[in-house]
Parts: sequence; C-alpha cells; structure tokens
Amino acid sequence: MTEHPTAGIDETVHQRHRLGILTIAAEAKRVEFGYLKSTLELTAGNLSRHITVLEEAGLLEVEKGYDGKRPKTWVSITNKGREALAAEMAALRALLDRHDRG
Amino acid sequence: MTEHPTAGIDETVHQRHRLGILTIAAEAKRVEFGYLKSTLELTAGNLSRHITVLEEAGLLEVEKGYDGKRPKTWVSITNKGREALAAEMAALRALLDRHDRG
Repeated sequence: MTEHPTAGIDETVHQRHRLGILTIAAEAKRVEFGYLKSTLELTAGNLSRHITVLEEAGLLEVEKGYDGKRPKTWVSITNKGREALAAEMAALRALLDRHDRG
Repeated sequence: MTEHPTAGIDETVHQRHRLGILTIAAEAKRVEFGYLKSTLELTAGNLSRHITVLEEAGLLEVEKGYDGKRPKTWVSITNKGREALAAEMAALRALLDRHDRG
C-alpha cells in the first residue's frame, strides 16, 4: 500500500500559524515581527512561541536590532526551513490530488 | 490587505492525523477502525482520541457493531465534515497557489 499523503507531514511545519510564518518568510529576505503579527493576526506572545519552535528546529533565524531607536526583531527562513516548507507543500499537493480524484 | 490563507484553516481539521482520517472517510460510505489504524500507522489509542475530537465537532459519526462475532467500529463523515474538509482543501489550495507565485 502506498503511504498516505499525511504521513509526509511534519507538525513542526504543518501547524497553521507556523505554516503561515514560514510561507511569509519564504517570500522575502527577512520579515519583521510586527508585520508577521498583523498579517497572521496573532498576539505577540503566541507569535513568539511559534517563532521559538521554528528557530529551535533550525527552520528560522532570528535577528534582533534597532530601526532608529525602536527595538525590532526580524526573522529569516534558513535553507533547512525552505526544504521543510517544500516537503510540506509537496505533501499538501499530494493530498489535494488524492482528494480531487476521490 | 487580503487575509492570509492560513487564516482559513481550522486546527480541528488541519491536524495531520485528523486530516488523514477525514480524507479517507470522504472516499467511502464508511471506514473501519482497523483500516484507518493501518493506513495512517497510528496506535489504537491515538486514533481513538482523534476520532473523538472529530465526533465531538460533529464531523464524523461513529458506529459500533459486529462483523460475525468480532466487535468492529466504523466511522463515516457527516455533511458538516464534508464541508469542513472542503474548506480546508480550499485553504490549502490558496496557500499552494500563493507559494507557487512567490
């Protein structure tokens, strides 16, 4: 029996807010914390927690600095993060294909 | 700003094992517990927990009976379950489309 498409899914990437963070991070060189927060409609605490999960998994890098006098946090996707996101997208595509055939 | 595709995702449906259960249930009139267990490579306890979440959300119906003398459990997707799965698939398709354009 062929493996079910959901077997190829990693919850680290699949969880909806983390999937949102990674897809947005994949669209730019780096993204600012406040932009993610408003785009994904998350609280700062919730966003921080998900960023930490992704950082600890090596999928995101976090950079802290200043924009003028304002402290800012930027995140960027790592090569490992791009690979994990590509694997997730491939699994989702396989799931959609199977569903469409059903 | 257009809502990010992950905003349309409901974790009740999106969690990977529950997504597996619903997609398989959507392919047949009803599916047997043991079939889900082997296809999704889950333990009985883990599968039971996810089925309960889906049943309590009104997305699955659970039927217990016998196949000869052997007790069996079957699950079937409800209309609400089909609608929730269709919404999830639409959100995943929007996410893939956005990712492909990126």
